[in-house]
Amino acid sequence: MPGTAALSTLPHGFVDALRALPGALPVFTSPEELDRFGHDETEDLRFPPQVVVQPRTTEQVAAIVALCAAHAVPITPMGAHTGLSGGALAVHGGVGLSMAKMNAIVNIDERNQQVTVEPGVITQVLQEAVAAKGLYYAPDPSSRGSCTIGGNLAENAGGPRAVKYGVTRDFVLNLQVVLPSGEVIWTGANTLKNSTGYDLTRLIVGSEGTLGIITKAVLRLVPLPKETRLMLVPFPDAHKACEAVSAVFRAGITPSALEFMERDAIDWTLRFVEGVNIAIAEDTAAHLLIEVDGNHGDVLMRECETILGVMEQFGCQDVLFAETSAEKDALWMMRRRVGEAVKSNSVYKEEDTVVPRYELPNLLAKVKEVGAKYGFKSVCYGHAGDGNLHVNIIKGDMPDEAWRKDLPTAIREIFQYTVSVGGTLSGEHGIGLVQRPYMDIAFDPVQLDLMRGIKALFDPLGIMNPGKVLP
Amino acid sequence: MPGTAALSTLPHGFVDALRALPGALPVFTSPEELDRFGHDETEDLRFPPQVVVQPRTTEQVAAIVALCAAHAVPITPMGAHTGLSGGALAVHGGVGLSMAKMNAIVNIDERNQQVTVEPGVITQVLQEAVAAKGLYYAPDPSSRGSCTIGGNLAENAGGPRAVKYGVTRDFVLNLQVVLPSGEVIWTGANTLKNSTGYDLTRLIVGSEGTLGIITKAVLRLVPLPKETRLMLVPFPDAHKACEAVSAVFRAGITPSALEFMERDAIDWTLRFVEGVNIAIAEDTAAHLLIEVDGNHGDVLMRECETILGVMEQFGCQDVLFAETSAEKDALWMMRRRVGEAVKSNSVYKEEDTVVPRYELPNLLAKVKEVGAKYGFKSVCYGHAGDGNLHVNIIKGDMPDEAWRKDLPTAIREIFQYTVSVGGTLSGEHGIGLVQRPYMDIAFDPVQLDLMRGIKALFDPLGIMNPGKVLP
Repeated sequence: MPGTAALSTLPHGFVDALRALPGALPVFTSPEELDRFGHDETEDLRFPPQVVVQPRTTEQVAAIVALCAAHAVPITPMGAHTGLSGGALAVHGGVGLSMAKMNAIVNIDERNQQVTVEPGVITQVLQEAVAAKGLYYAPDPSSRGSCTIGGNLAENAGGPRAVKYGVTRDFVLNLQVVLPSGEVIWTGANTLKNSTGYDLTRLIVGSEGTLGIITKAVLRLVPLPKETRLMLVPFPDAHKACEAVSAVFRAGITPSALEFMERDAIDWTLRFVEGVNIAIAEDTAAHLLIEVDGNHGDVLMRECETILGVMEQFGCQDVLFAETSAEKDALWMMRRRVGEAVKSNSVYKEEDTVVPRYELPNLLAKVKEVGAKYGFKSVCYGHAGDGNLHVNIIKGDMPDEAWRKDLPTAIREIFQYTVSVGGTLSGEHGIGLVQRPYMDIAFDPVQLDLMRGIKALFDPLGIMNPGKVLP
Repeated sequence: MPGTAALSTLPHGFVDALRALPGALPVFTSPEELDRFGHDETEDLRFPPQVVVQPRTTEQVAAIVALCAAHAVPITPMGAHTGLSGGALAVHGGVGLSMAKMNAIVNIDERNQQVTVEPGVITQVLQEAVAAKGLYYAPDPSSRGSCTIGGNLAENAGGPRAVKYGVTRDFVLNLQVVLPSGEVIWTGANTLKNSTGYDLTRLIVGSEGTLGIITKAVLRLVPLPKETRLMLVPFPDAHKACEAVSAVFRAGITPSALEFMERDAIDWTLRFVEGVNIAIAEDTAAHLLIEVDGNHGDVLMRECETILGVMEQFGCQDVLFAETSAEKDALWMMRRRVGEAVKSNSVYKEEDTVVPRYELPNLLAKVKEVGAKYGFKSVCYGHAGDGNLHVNIIKGDMPDEAWRKDLPTAIREIFQYTVSVGGTLSGEHGIGLVQRPYMDIAFDPVQLDLMRGIKALFDPLGIMNPGKVLP
C-alpha cells in the first residue's frame, strides 16, 4: 500500500544544503534508495521520505534538525525499520533521518553497571557486549537481532523478559536529545534514583520520535543471571492456559518470561522456520513458554516444580523441558519468529492489546467473539505474564470490502473492551501511525489536549515525525 | 524560621465559599490550626497556609481546585508533613489542601497483584495490608510509619529497598489526578506495560504537587519475599566502606538494602533511640547495613557468604548478623531514625545528593573537603547501593554569619561536584523549596524552559503549589 498523506514540498536548494553540511554526510535521493527507507514491519505500508540523510554525530543531527526547522521541513527519525506501528514512516515526506551509522557502544561502565550507547546500536549487539562482562540488558524485543536501541526507546519496547525486569523505560537513566529547535539537552542524570525536576527522561521514552531525537542513552544494567530453565507447556484449552498465567504469580513466582501462543501460531511457525521440530498433540489448543532465571540451579528446579503444580491445576498436557542450550535456543527461535510466520500467510492487521494479567482469558474470548461477529480469523500470542496479547487479525478469505469497511469497527470493539477492563491500546509497539485512529478510546479530550500541548511545547513547528501518536 | 514569601490575599467571601461546598468539609482558619499545617520535617521552616480544607472525595478536591482557579488562589497539597525539601509548605499562603482524610485502601486486587489507594494512606499501613495477602509494596521511606502514598508519589520517594525493587515511580501504574483547571483525568492504564501516548503518569510522579493533585493511585505489587538476612558491617575506614558498596553488585549480588552510616550517625542514634544497644569498636568509622531477601534461606546464606567475602577484601571489622526478628527490627529502627537523631543535635541543613554508585567514596571525600574549607561538620548516611548520600551539614558552633553567608556557597560546591560525576541534586527528597536555588547546576536554561513550559501547560494560572521545584 503506497503512502497517501500529503507530502511537503522540499524548498529549493534544500538537498544541496543537506549535502553542504559539515561532515559530507551520505544523502540519498533516488527512488530506489528512498523506497528502502519507506517501510517498516507494519503491514505493507510504504511512505518513502523525499530525502534521507545519515549523520554520525550529535552535532550533525543538531545541524540537520536546525536546517529542517529553518525551512519547516518534516523530519522522521528512523532506526532498523522493524517497527510494528508505523512510527518511523515518513507519512508527510520530508527528511528521513537514518540513525543507522550512530551505532557505537560508547562506554560500558562495569563499576557502575551502566552503559552509554548511540541509538543505532542493535539490541542484541548491546546485550552480547555487556554479557561478555557479566552484565545484563534485559529488554528483549523479538526483533532484537535487527532492531536498535533508539527504536526501542522511541516505542518503549518490551519483549519477553519485561515481566521480570521491566520494559525499556525501566532501564533508562539519562538521554541526550536533539530538540526540534536543534538544541541539545541531557534529560536527567546517570543515577539510579532521581527526584530532580520533572521527569523529562520518561517523557522522551515512548514519545516515538515526536518530541526530539535521541542521540545517546545511558542505560542501567543488572548482573547477568547465571542459569535459566525453560519449559513449553501445552494445553487442550486456550482459555485455561491464559487462566494459568496469573496463578503462577499468585504462587509467589516471578518467571523471567511467560509467553502465550495459540495453536495456529506454533503450527505456522514450525512450517515457516527451518530446524525446529516439536511434536504437538492433536488436541493441543495453546502453549505457554515459561522461563525462570537466577544464580542457583537448585532454586530454579524448585521454582519449576511450583510452576508445574500450577500448570497441572489448569489441566496442562505433557510438558517439554528444554534440556540443552540448543533446545532452549530452538524454543526461543520459534517464539521469536511467530510474528513473521503468522504474517507471512495472509494480509493481516496486528494489534498490541494489553490488560491487567488476570483479564487475559477474557480478552482472548472477546477477540474470538468479535472475530465470529465480523467474520475474521485471528491468531493470538504474546507476553502473557504482562497481560500483553498480540492479536493478529488474518484477512484470509474475508472479502476486500468487508476488510476495508468492517475491520476498523471490529478493532474498535476489541480496544473498547480492552480499555473497559483497565487495559489500553499498546503494550510495547507504540501508537505510531496505525493505532492513532483509536486514541480517543484510551483518552478523552482533556488528556489528549495535554499531550498535544506537550507536543506543541517541544515542537512548535510540528516538524518532528508529524502524523504520529496524536489523532 | 517563619515564612517570608509574599502571601496572596484571600478574596472576600472565599472561606465562606469553601465552607459552602457540598460535603460540609472541615475548614481550618485559626492560627493554631494553620500552624499545624505550616511545617514539615525540613529544617525549622514554617509557612502556614491561610486556610486549610480537608476533602474526602475526588469530586470535592475538584470543586476546591475549581474554586481556587476561579479566584486565582494558590493551593498547596499536603500529606503527613514528613517532607524533607519543603514541598508541601504553603510559601505563598492560600489554601492548604490536606489529603489526610482521603486515606482509603480502595481495593487490593490479588488476582492482578495491584492495589488502588487514596493518597492519604500511610505507607506502612499499605505495606501491612498487602503483606497480609502475601504481597509486597517495596518503596519504603524511613518515615514509612507516618508518611503517605500521596507524598511518596509527589516526591518520587525511595528508601532502602529501592536498590533492588525500584523507587515509587517504578510501582505506579495509573493515577487519578485533579488538574489545576478542576478537571479530573486518569493518566494511563492499569497495566504493567504501556506504550500508548506520552507518559503522563511519570510526568506527574515526582512533580511535587505542582501539576495537579493525585486523588487515586493504582500501584503494582510483587510477591512478598519469604525471608531476609540482615548484617551490620563495621569498617575502620569510611572511604573503604563506600568502596565496598559497588563491589557487592559486581560480585553479582543485588541486596534488598545496602545502607551506609558514618560513625557519628550511629552514635547519635544510639543515644537518641531507646531500646537499641549495639557495641561499637572504638576505631569503627562507618557501617554498612546489608539485607538480602528471597524465598530460600539456603540461597540467602550463600549470598551472605559472597557479600562477606567482598566486605573482607575492603577491611571490614567483626560483622553483626541479626539472628532474630527482634534483632532485625532493632537494626532497622536504628537506621530509620538516624535522620531524626542527627537533626536533634543542632541546627542543620540536609542534602539528598545522588551519584553513580562507584562515585560514592569520592562524594564522601568531597563533602568532608568542603566541610574543612568552610568550617562545618557533616554527618553522612544513606542508600549507598543507589549512590544516594544524605549529607547532614551540622551548624554546631559555626557562627550565624558564616552559616547564613557561606553555606549556600559550600552547598553549591558539593552539588557542582555531584553533577560533574554524573549525579544530581536529589535522589528521593525532591527539590521542593530548599533545593530550588541550585537547579541551575543540574539543568541549563533549555531544560528549565521545557520544565517551565510543562508547568504553564498544566497550570496556566500558576496556582498549584507555587514557589516550588522551578527557580
